[in-house]
Amino acid sequence: MRLAIEKAREGGAGFVAVRNSNHYGIAGYYAIMALDSDCIGISMTNASPSVVPTFGREAILGTNPLSVAAPAGQERPFVLDMATSVVPRGKLELYHRLAKPLLEGWAVDERGSTATDAGVILRNLRERLGGGILPLGGKGEELGGHKGYGLALMVDILSGVLGGAGYADRVSPKGERGKMKPGNVGHLFGALLIEAFRPLEEFKADMDEIIRCLKGSAKAEGESRIYFHGEKEWEMEEERSKRGIPLHPRVVTMMEEIAEELNLSLVLDNPS
Amino acid sequence: MRLAIEKAREGGAGFVAVRNSNHYGIAGYYAIMALDSDCIGISMTNASPSVVPTFGREAILGTNPLSVAAPAGQERPFVLDMATSVVPRGKLELYHRLAKPLLEGWAVDERGSTATDAGVILRNLRERLGGGILPLGGKGEELGGHKGYGLALMVDILSGVLGGAGYADRVSPKGERGKMKPGNVGHLFGALLIEAFRPLEEFKADMDEIIRCLKGSAKAEGESRIYFHGEKEWEMEEERSKRGIPLHPRVVTMMEEIAEELNLSLVLDNPS
Repeated sequence: MRLAIEKAREGGAGFVAVRNSNHYGIAGYYAIMALDSDCIGISMTNASPSVVPTFGREAILGTNPLSVAAPAGQERPFVLDMATSVVPRGKLELYHRLAKPLLEGWAVDERGSTATDAGVILRNLRERLGGGILPLGGKGEELGGHKGYGLALMVDILSGVLGGAGYADRVSPKGERGKMKPGNVGHLFGALLIEAFRPLEEFKADMDEIIRCLKGSAKAEGESRIYFHGEKEWEMEEERSKRGIPLHPRVVTMMEEIAEELNLSLVLDNPS
Repeated sequence: MRLAIEKAREGGAGFVAVRNSNHYGIAGYYAIMALDSDCIGISMTNASPSVVPTFGREAILGTNPLSVAAPAGQERPFVLDMATSVVPRGKLELYHRLAKPLLEGWAVDERGSTATDAGVILRNLRERLGGGILPLGGKGEELGGHKGYGLALMVDILSGVLGGAGYADRVSPKGERGKMKPGNVGHLFGALLIEAFRPLEEFKADMDEIIRCLKGSAKAEGESRIYFHGEKEWEMEEERSKRGIPLHPRVVTMMEEIAEELNLSLVLDNPS
């Protein structure tokens, strides 16, 4: 990402592909790096297979997240950071821990039919038994599932194929289970220097305006607030910096079990 | 787009913003222009307001389409060309002409509630009475509507704000109705030179592989085919180049009425 920013500062636009990588953490982390250099930041990665293509029943693509960050003036920066699947894999893991059924439109089973048991989907994915998470837009084409599938494929082409990394069902982070060979995950990092397009202060003033226009627009009946992307997370960061990070009792139990197994002491602040 | 390709051929990546524009036609048309220069092509545009933000009931954003095209070797090029709304505005116009109800999850009325009458939605949009098309992912956040809203906003920032064009509800193609002032629609065109990242032939061979991997993967029960993006359109182009373009009788009637009104003769090939 640093190299992409450097290239953007020289030539207006900089793009860098990465291969031989593993899970890169939070997509938005890299996009946000560009903000200090007055650039728009772009970051995307492929991931191990968990998403079925439209009309398919095999997980071929990853949740392939995409992030774009742009600075504002007085408002917080815009930070889009989204899996191109209808939900990220972590949401299935969360629902599994909470023993909650998945919503219809999130996942399909090994026949390609709607499925709601997170535990079964996650096991099927681990053991490659078929089925998986649906692309953004859900099953079939009626609600635009082919668009989410297209975005996932676009991210795979730009992160995997363009840089010569793994792609589709050939992405295996951390190599084979238990072996120490490197993963072949691919990423794409990009930066656009705002000053190469228009004066920075004008851009920032218009960013404030577009954010205020959206936030100030009329709410649907029963709704009290319209967000822009990144806003919830900026507020959460502030809140948690002050008050700490709440943990679900089920997560605390898991951590206690792991601590006991490894003979470590677990120190939780205010464990009520 | 030509300038973006030229810049990519010089420096590996080229991006050009356009302001003072109108409806630019087909997003994919520009992305495809990059293929002859062995580049990945990127094209996006904002549009006049027709899409409501998540939790909103006012159309603030356009259907803001996005296109990315990448060449393959023996396979046809990948061409993603999608509105970031759940359906394009043209689909509502089509359903209105066919007098078909919209699917739930496509649009909301002036209160922000699910609506299925295309005629009412289109009139409300024309007269700015509230309501509009939903972003990809539909209403609320459960099926990822906030992601489609984020993609629409991303396209508006990159096409409208970055180039100093109109944005959000300030986009008015063709200026005020009936006046001849220029529109203020904005576009972004981009090109990435593949050879700047890896040898072209390797890229194309992997593109063939990823396309075949997806198309060859297991189909959901009841489905016979998995597509990649652009494939349907390439096939349709071939078919229609041979056999002509079929028109719905309702469309033919409209054309006949317009022809009569303007005192023009309408010549249709094989008007059965």
